[in-house]
Amino acid sequence: MPELRKDPIVGRWVIISTERARRPLEYAHEPPPPRSAAFCPFCPGYEDKAPHEVYVDRSGGAWTLRVVPNRFPALKIEGHLDRQGEGLYDKMNGIGAHEVIIETPRHDVQLHDLDEDAIERVFIAYRERILDLKKDARFRYVMVFKNQGQAAGASLEHTHSQLIALPVVPINVTEMMRGARHYFEYKERCIFCDISKQEMTDGRRVIYENPGFVVVAPFAPKQPFETWILPKTHAASYEEADTKSFRQLADAVRTALRKLAKALGNPPYNFMLHTAPFADRGAQHYHWHVEIMPTLQKVAGFEWGSGFYINPTPPEDAAAFLRDLDP
Amino acid sequence: MPELRKDPIVGRWVIISTERARRPLEYAHEPPPPRSAAFCPFCPGYEDKAPHEVYVDRSGGAWTLRVVPNRFPALKIEGHLDRQGEGLYDKMNGIGAHEVIIETPRHDVQLHDLDEDAIERVFIAYRERILDLKKDARFRYVMVFKNQGQAAGASLEHTHSQLIALPVVPINVTEMMRGARHYFEYKERCIFCDISKQEMTDGRRVIYENPGFVVVAPFAPKQPFETWILPKTHAASYEEADTKSFRQLADAVRTALRKLAKALGNPPYNFMLHTAPFADRGAQHYHWHVEIMPTLQKVAGFEWGSGFYINPTPPEDAAAFLRDLDP
Repeated sequence: MPELRKDPIVGRWVIISTERARRPLEYAHEPPPPRSAAFCPFCPGYEDKAPHEVYVDRSGGAWTLRVVPNRFPALKIEGHLDRQGEGLYDKMNGIGAHEVIIETPRHDVQLHDLDEDAIERVFIAYRERILDLKKDARFRYVMVFKNQGQAAGASLEHTHSQLIALPVVPINVTEMMRGARHYFEYKERCIFCDISKQEMTDGRRVIYENPGFVVVAPFAPKQPFETWILPKTHAASYEEADTKSFRQLADAVRTALRKLAKALGNPPYNFMLHTAPFADRGAQHYHWHVEIMPTLQKVAGFEWGSGFYINPTPPEDAAAFLRDLDP
Repeated sequence: MPELRKDPIVGRWVIISTERARRPLEYAHEPPPPRSAAFCPFCPGYEDKAPHEVYVDRSGGAWTLRVVPNRFPALKIEGHLDRQGEGLYDKMNGIGAHEVIIETPRHDVQLHDLDEDAIERVFIAYRERILDLKKDARFRYVMVFKNQGQAAGASLEHTHSQLIALPVVPINVTEMMRGARHYFEYKERCIFCDISKQEMTDGRRVIYENPGFVVVAPFAPKQPFETWILPKTHAASYEEADTKSFRQLADAVRTALRKLAKALGNPPYNFMLHTAPFADRGAQHYHWHVEIMPTLQKVAGFEWGSGFYINPTPPEDAAAFLRDLDP
């Protein structure tokens, strides 16, 4: 059984993942590259390799998108949390859900190669899975993310996203909520709404815009070419957003990814969906959004130690470059 | 002039480093590998390539350790902070010091190959530089760190550490101070003192111990084989610690690094010195310490989004393995 353990100083939880246990000498060797297309458990015909489908879209007759449990889950769905102390430390059982969203049956494409219909289906699948997992009273948060490319942490080539349902609110989310609440207490406005408005008026960091979403290079990016997709309409929780806007979300994400692919030569990247914790449903101070972070720089000692980031590309330059690119 | 910009939501500062500016297409190519020994600006004979020595140790006649300004500094030493707003955003000039500690004249060794005398000199140099930079009223913190190996972010092969003096307290330090203060308010004891005592009594996560320091695998490590070196005597600030203990610090760090090198086949790693902000001098609730983090796993979407980490090696297993290794 994996274990959740809390750093006693900053309160960050970590997953001690016994399912993925590695012996010391295994680290001395690079992990094998993603398996070749000769055998891919996410390809049609191999559905028995990724069984227990929890969601499927068959809008094309055969499946067009599947969601399956991760075969090597970081957390386990069965069991009780059993929160307990160990001297001054805190821990609990590693309870959670870890699922894989197989975005398309096609092995030879990346997410940005798909059309708007297909990308919209991905966002609908995220929503359906969050709504389902929210019914489980043990969970407080669902983190949806995507690792594209080996350097960004992908271990399989076939394009997919993942989600992890957690029994605690992750520290980054707690900090974002705290900051956003602090701003709201002072201004009585949502900070994300204010950011969108200031960016659209200023224009220097805007990469793309459609009626529902604005794509920006954030003012203080952790990494070069970091890109945020902000809904223009306030909603704290992704899963409660108006699904009619998902078509425009698909357009915004597709455009952002295509511009990044063109600008940076198909870079590896991480994609994160930021939404409010279940308990903060309807919050006036928080606003769901998407972050895309190309993997261009290493996290080194200064970043690990300080939480500071050194970014050699001003976001105004990145935005100008991306804005002018034909997606 | 580089710029310091604050993320308006969580309050994290980033450095927009114009000195290191890179055009988009430069990211499409891997940076060149560390320069070969044919020309190394840190080797004896090339002192004119890294001029303006700010500290030197000549205990061996010729220099045995030098500290020089970084030739491509993330921040600039000259100028005023000039804090200002830009709509809802905050920024200031990128003022700070960025120095390189050339740990030895020898090009063909790593830090763990040096003897205790030489490693003690490194820790004395850190202290002298912090004490000097502390006199500059613009600075609030000095982050000392080391990137060993290209995968850990080193761009030159010759063994060296770095320090960056900052006009703001980094977010990770603020969070550690907040957590430690919270514990102190409740318990009236330093959390780091309590951790050391619990670890020494428990023993399962202890890697090494000498009269002044205990080397442990932390209870909730972010990365496999993460290693902390905790002073047994309370002191908030590294630069105010009893220098008589530096010999034992050198022994503890050397032993930890040699064990990690043997266990993991000379892994790339980051090394961070955590000390109290200048304003918290003498704090009862904080306790300086050293963190060593081998570069064994990638930071991917889940970690970026949540601040959670998935660690496949329980610290008890890592500690048992390292404890039994002959350094």
